[in-house]
Amino acid sequence: MKIMVIHGPNLNMLGEREPDVYGTVTLEDIDNMLKKNAAEKDIHLIIKQSNFEGEIINWIQQFSSSVEGIIINPAAFTHYSVAIRDALSNLSIPVVEVHLSNICAREDFRHRSVTAPVVQGQISGFGFQSYLLGLEAVIHLLEGKED
Amino acid sequence: MKIMVIHGPNLNMLGEREPDVYGTVTLEDIDNMLKKNAAEKDIHLIIKQSNFEGEIINWIQQFSSSVEGIIINPAAFTHYSVAIRDALSNLSIPVVEVHLSNICAREDFRHRSVTAPVVQGQISGFGFQSYLLGLEAVIHLLEGKED
Amino acid sequence: MKIMVIHGPNLNMLGEREPDVYGTVTLEDIDNMLKKNAAEKDIHLIIKQSNFEGEIINWIQQFSSSVEGIIINPAAFTHYSVAIRDALSNLSIPVVEVHLSNICAREDFRHRSVTAPVVQGQISGFGFQSYLLGLEAVIHLLEGKED
Amino acid sequence: MKIMVIHGPNLNMLGEREPDVYGTVTLEDIDNMLKKNAAEKDIHLIIKQSNFEGEIINWIQQFSSSVEGIIINPAAFTHYSVAIRDALSNLSIPVVEVHLSNICAREDFRHRSVTAPVVQGQISGFGFQSYLLGLEAVIHLLEGKED
Amino acid sequence: MKIMVIHGPNLNMLGEREPDVYGTVTLEDIDNMLKKNAAEKDIHLIIKQSNFEGEIINWIQQFSSSVEGIIINPAAFTHYSVAIRDALSNLSIPVVEVHLSNICAREDFRHRSVTAPVVQGQISGFGFQSYLLGLEAVIHLLEGKED
Amino acid sequence: MKIMVIHGPNLNMLGEREPDVYGTVTLEDIDNMLKKNAAEKDIHLIIKQSNFEGEIINWIQQFSSSVEGIIINPAAFTHYSVAIRDALSNLSIPVVEVHLSNICAREDFRHRSVTAPVVQGQISGFGFQSYLLGLEAVIHLLEGKED
Amino acid sequence: MKIMVIHGPNLNMLGEREPDVYGTVTLEDIDNMLKKNAAEKDIHLIIKQSNFEGEIINWIQQFSSSVEGIIINPAAFTHYSVAIRDALSNLSIPVVEVHLSNICAREDFRHRSVTAPVVQGQISGFGFQSYLLGLEAVIHLLEGKED
Amino acid sequence: MKIMVIHGPNLNMLGEREPDVYGTVTLEDIDNMLKKNAAEKDIHLIIKQSNFEGEIINWIQQFSSSVEGIIINPAAFTHYSVAIRDALSNLSIPVVEVHLSNICAREDFRHRSVTAPVVQGQISGFGFQSYLLGLEAVIHLLEGKED
Amino acid sequence: MKIMVIHGPNLNMLGEREPDVYGTVTLEDIDNMLKKNAAEKDIHLIIKQSNFEGEIINWIQQFSSSVEGIIINPAAFTHYSVAIRDALSNLSIPVVEVHLSNICAREDFRHRSVTAPVVQGQISGFGFQSYLLGLEAVIHLLEGKED
Amino acid sequence: MKIMVIHGPNLNMLGEREPDVYGTVTLEDIDNMLKKNAAEKDIHLIIKQSNFEGEIINWIQQFSSSVEGIIINPAAFTHYSVAIRDALSNLSIPVVEVHLSNICAREDFRHRSVTAPVVQGQISGFGFQSYLLGLEAVIHLLEGKED
Amino acid sequence: MKIMVIHGPNLNMLGEREPDVYGTVTLEDIDNMLKKNAAEKDIHLIIKQSNFEGEIINWIQQFSSSVEGIIINPAAFTHYSVAIRDALSNLSIPVVEVHLSNICAREDFRHRSVTAPVVQGQISGFGFQSYLLGLEAVIHLLEGKED
Amino acid sequence: MKIMVIHGPNLNMLGEREPDVYGTVTLEDIDNMLKKNAAEKDIHLIIKQSNFEGEIINWIQQFSSSVEGIIINPAAFTHYSVAIRDALSNLSIPVVEVHLSNICAREDFRHRSVTAPVVQGQISGFGFQSYLLGLEAVIHLLEGKED
Repeated sequence: MKIMVIHGPNLNMLGEREPDVYGTVTLEDIDNMLKKNAAEKDIHLIIKQSNFEGEIINWIQQFSSSVEGIIINPAAFTHYSVAIRDALSNLSIPVVEVHLSNICAREDFRHRSVTAPVVQGQISGFGFQSYLLGLEAVIHLLEGKED
Repeated sequence: MKIMVIHGPNLNMLGEREPDVYGTVTLEDIDNMLKKNAAEKDIHLIIKQSNFEGEIINWIQQFSSSVEGIIINPAAFTHYSVAIRDALSNLSIPVVEVHLSNICAREDFRHRSVTAPVVQGQISGFGFQSYLLGLEAVIHLLEGKED
Repeated sequence: MKIMVIHGPNLNMLGEREPDVYGTVTLEDIDNMLKKNAAEKDIHLIIKQSNFEGEIINWIQQFSSSVEGIIINPAAFTHYSVAIRDALSNLSIPVVEVHLSNICAREDFRHRSVTAPVVQGQISGFGFQSYLLGLEAVIHLLEGKED
Repeated sequence: MKIMVIHGPNLNMLGEREPDVYGTVTLEDIDNMLKKNAAEKDIHLIIKQSNFEGEIINWIQQFSSSVEGIIINPAAFTHYSVAIRDALSNLSIPVVEVHLSNICAREDFRHRSVTAPVVQGQISGFGFQSYLLGLEAVIHLLEGKED
Repeated sequence: MKIMVIHGPNLNMLGEREPDVYGTVTLEDIDNMLKKNAAEKDIHLIIKQSNFEGEIINWIQQFSSSVEGIIINPAAFTHYSVAIRDALSNLSIPVVEVHLSNICAREDFRHRSVTAPVVQGQISGFGFQSYLLGLEAVIHLLEGKED
Repeated sequence: MKIMVIHGPNLNMLGEREPDVYGTVTLEDIDNMLKKNAAEKDIHLIIKQSNFEGEIINWIQQFSSSVEGIIINPAAFTHYSVAIRDALSNLSIPVVEVHLSNICAREDFRHRSVTAPVVQGQISGFGFQSYLLGLEAVIHLLEGKED
Repeated sequence: MKIMVIHGPNLNMLGEREPDVYGTVTLEDIDNMLKKNAAEKDIHLIIKQSNFEGEIINWIQQFSSSVEGIIINPAAFTHYSVAIRDALSNLSIPVVEVHLSNICAREDFRHRSVTAPVVQGQISGFGFQSYLLGLEAVIHLLEGKED
Repeated sequence: MKIMVIHGPNLNMLGEREPDVYGTVTLEDIDNMLKKNAAEKDIHLIIKQSNFEGEIINWIQQFSSSVEGIIINPAAFTHYSVAIRDALSNLSIPVVEVHLSNICAREDFRHRSVTAPVVQGQISGFGFQSYLLGLEAVIHLLEGKED
Repeated sequence: MKIMVIHGPNLNMLGEREPDVYGTVTLEDIDNMLKKNAAEKDIHLIIKQSNFEGEIINWIQQFSSSVEGIIINPAAFTHYSVAIRDALSNLSIPVVEVHLSNICAREDFRHRSVTAPVVQGQISGFGFQSYLLGLEAVIHLLEGKED
Repeated sequence: MKIMVIHGPNLNMLGEREPDVYGTVTLEDIDNMLKKNAAEKDIHLIIKQSNFEGEIINWIQQFSSSVEGIIINPAAFTHYSVAIRDALSNLSIPVVEVHLSNICAREDFRHRSVTAPVVQGQISGFGFQSYLLGLEAVIHLLEGKED
Repeated sequence: MKIMVIHGPNLNMLGEREPDVYGTVTLEDIDNMLKKNAAEKDIHLIIKQSNFEGEIINWIQQFSSSVEGIIINPAAFTHYSVAIRDALSNLSIPVVEVHLSNICAREDFRHRSVTAPVVQGQISGFGFQSYLLGLEAVIHLLEGKED
Repeated sequence: MKIMVIHGPNLNMLGEREPDVYGTVTLEDIDNMLKKNAAEKDIHLIIKQSNFEGEIINWIQQFSSSVEGIIINPAAFTHYSVAIRDALSNLSIPVVEVHLSNICAREDFRHRSVTAPVVQGQISGFGFQSYLLGLEAVIHLLEGKED
């Protein structure tokens, strides 16, 4: 079983810039935790990060027929990328949107998610645990399907 | 370790009314799944449901000093109960908001959550799994604290 | 045949407070007129009034399987109670919303009804006659079903 | 006693176009039901339909001094015809606005009624019964006056 | 010199309906005052009233090449008739918009005039004097042109 | 094969008023071009223009069962005529909305089209060519149907 | 002379939860200060607190005929409880709305008070002194009446 | 008979700055035309101009008991000076608001007049003639009163 | 101890214009009541009124270092004077905003106060008593500080 | 003669994903139809698709001096890409915007086109025919220029 | 060469009130820096500060013909003074708007500048350097003109 | 000392397309002026231009640790790129936003800058001088830091 993980713009700087503000957990750390959890369940993860909206769309198009689920943190693109929304819309595999922070507790413009209405569900506010919970959510969704 | 689970208005009808529409999973089923998962981790759950905003506030006030975390599905109250928001605000224990459905994919007025800005995080759209993921999220938050 | 009538908050004061402003028709008078009209058609009415949103939800849940129709004047709850909306939504029996006054001719915030989109229809502006017309409407809807 | 019934634009197509969608009840059927009900109560109905806003205004002006009440379904004009509103405003006879469908359950722009604030009351959502209930409402209003 | 005067919907009822509310000045009275004032200045008036938006557009099209100015009280059409706006727009003769009442002191929706941006100027709030001042304004505009 | 062409308000003045502004192409010129193009494809055109919303609705009702497609330029009515929208809605024949100018490049209130959501498609901004393209579009739609 | 004091939701936690944030003044302290001030002026206070909107409405209905004034801090209900507004509206006794904090200096949604338009006046921002000033305000209003 | 004329901010620059843009008519010219017209009718004018909102309020307060009418061009203050609105509100003498330009044809923020709802009427768009028509309007209003 | 009292625009006319509407209490009366109350507590009042926003700002700047508290009724300036807000913001002495009328019960534009977020608290709706309560509020705030 | 065709994001998936939903016409099919039509008129097409906003801008910049017209379907970028708008703005060659679906009949956020105000015209709702009509439109525009 | 510098309301308190918050740079310091910089380039500065909107307008009118450029920090007036906007509009000399703070990073109501659309450009966020950069900007604009 | 200069989308066309409209100053000219000014102060500039949002984010991430300041003209991205905002947010070096034109004087959607709240300051409206002033601003900010 293969699952894709997509990190949106600026997430590559996680833990590297201003560790006193954002903590010292890096994106690599998150990826390793995800891989460890996935390995335990015999799942292969394909993990990508990009600051380019187009590249994220390309990956969704390219992998959506070969993976069985997608975990995506669209980061800033959450709030305006209709193009990513269109790429995610009506996929035949489950998609879970995750956010490190509680986006409802931040600036007004972050309360609106243009991608949320076309994904299966959302998990936000738990830091790196949002990703781990997202992985479980995808697995549950796939298991539910099999029943 | 004790954790509280609060179900908001109309959730008591789950699975009983229109099973062909909402499925046959009842609130009792969800509670049993939650209890089973909790028991495995030696956690005691206090589970409540009410159609009264005031009763939910009473429970939050009454139990927030004796439990170590709260999982709440405020249901319809999500969208207007400033009183529940105020009860949840600034608690010293983690609070996780869960929703069965993806509220961003429903009517416009359901996109706004007045409670979300004062909780730790949100999980929505995974049916009964939203609760199970919520339980895990609370446990993660408590474990994180201990470190 | 049984039909439920639900009066929302503050309607219990009708005709008792400021009779020179609101007239001298009391809620009891309305109930008696409704019962008389119902009796003529061999219909039994279950009539309730509450200032508690939760109690109204409880009654809808409790009686919606044993009555054949509901007449509800949600009064102030009309404008914000998503919880009552959810309780009324997708019932298998007809629901008619009634208002004593013409809510479109009052303050702006009263023009929006959160319950209206999930009921069968609305009757507003005819004083106590709104209830009597509501009773007829429910009967028509039930008769129409039988055909 | 004479009462006027005014049908707004496109209502003349009722039941004739797409019977599988809108049912087979035609405007003529509604008019006949109304006439039958009216005749039983010794009321003479003047019934008009127009696709012209100006013609509807002309009729209101022309007949408002010779009839004792008006039942109007402004249809699409409900949502923008300030001119019909002005014609109905401050008439000395009761005016009842009726709608076949529950306009609150349709597109957003249909939730606003520019005519509603100047009529006695509204009945919507009961199909052709909206008209029959409207007739009763007008009769009640006239009887109430006589008291 | 010929000037056209156009009265919009419902103005034909002026002074006839509810004289205690609107006064006893009829549209005929206003027309006579206008004609008297015009005659003194050797001006011929063409005066029209209609409840039909289309008829008003027809008159504007038909007479705008044979009269030297237009005084129009679009009444309710002021607030939504883009079609009358388009008919008035870019005429080569001066157009003055008049209103009996002070539309800024009435309901919110009357504060917006869709016709105002395409006319020369507006006079509102002076009862029938609005028309007489409008006549003077047109004459001034024509005299100004001659200079 | 018969196709109807409906020109909305003020289009009859095209090319006659202010030729230096709007060009010298008249509505008659457009009609002739349309007829010539139609004739080449053995199509009979029924062409109408009106400044009356009601007349346009009448034509839609009267001809929608005897023609095989409609090309309509609702002009100013585009922006507020819910009544024309209702007349066009759910017709069993294709309807194409055309505009001479690019309405998105004009005043804000012209960006909203109340008719657009119920027609097949829109063509705007190409002057008289909008009509010729509209004719082709209808033919394509009819041909597509036949396949 | 009897005056009623109503404390809205969550005020019962005052001073008990997070004393370092909200100070150590409890609701009981406030009640004692109010009682002491009232006793000096020979006034009897009836003091109530509830987290239930319905209970607050019940109290207003029950006591408004036996007390001579009401001091109410609707807390979170200030911002959405149309039902409490309706209960307070048109009472024959003075009602004063008080707030511990300056609600205009907090989140946007707290700037709107649905109850304020139907009370005599508002006092906000002075901590527990808001209540003491509110008591004085009611006394002034009652004394003013007697003159 | 005395009438006051108040010119708002920046009107003192009329005709002096950029004569090729605004014409060569100065405020002094307008004042002279007004005085000439007034003199013919035996009216004494008190004419003031200020760039200070406070000074305009002072004049309204100072003169409203000794003049019989006010003509005011609030200029930029039209759009935000609630203080001038309050000064004009409920005066016992007629007040006419005039504007040189057609404010509805300018920037969006100029479409709203905060003073208009409290004056008798408005005249806008006729250049200096707006003032002369305003003088006539005041005279008409005073004559009407005498009848 | 010195406290400043600032009356905003048009308050100087209180009780002098239209005594039948606004009552016969003049600003002088209010000032005398305030002085009497202050004298009893050995407080010296500096009282100012102006129709000029700039003068009010000057006074705030000039006196804020020599008085110990400010009572301000910004009147119309409440709703738009960002300049007065900036003058009041971050003063080291307490500022209390008072209003004679209940501004929440008046026109929509009066519901917004630009000054309220930067003052200590607000008292509105009690007529001249608003000032007396404001004086007490300032004294309480100063006493509270001393503790 | 050379004309450029630009396909926006996700259009490369046309007909490949969910053929039962979107039909089996692929982007390649559309390109072939376009090329066939173009070839008949001796026109060379340059056809590009990208999921990258920046790449589309690059192509517009690179080719706008060597082609004689542009047909663009900005897809999701239609609704927010000010950068593509700026690239298209004030080109000296005609640009036609096309859409497969009727964007006015879809979600609210798709009704706004940020690119539409700077192109020559729009064609939407005709499936692949939108492109063929777009090609004709460009040719007409170029022919019109030559005259 | 003479250039005018205008400081808006409350700027006279700069550095004097709460030096720990706003720093110790006073307006006099800024003026001295400006004068020093100006002197080096042989420019004479006329520097004014006022808390009165009217005084600022007077200065603009009085000096705009004798100076060659204006640097203005309208402070709070930035957000509502249409009167200052009108005074600045269409001057024949360059005007530069400066702000000490980054107004886009402050409260929402400070994001809108009513003066910005009529000046040459804006510089904000650099503390006292905003003025020095503004001086350079004016000089550049004047030099540019001479070329 | 190294400073980065980032030019957003379409700026590479400056001076090349439509020189009669935008002038003949090219981006290369601006870069040369910047370099010359920088060289005089011994500053090395790294200058980049891209039409890709992602590339701009990459550069900000890549260079923000090796340069001492950033001058950015986000062009069209100013109005919607939350991703660039997030990249710029909380950098430890000063960032200055510059615009060639006065964006407040252009279309409404250009008045909102999503990047402005996270940069140090903004300079707009001075053509290429905006960049030169931006360079000075960065230098001032860096010098200020050293003190």
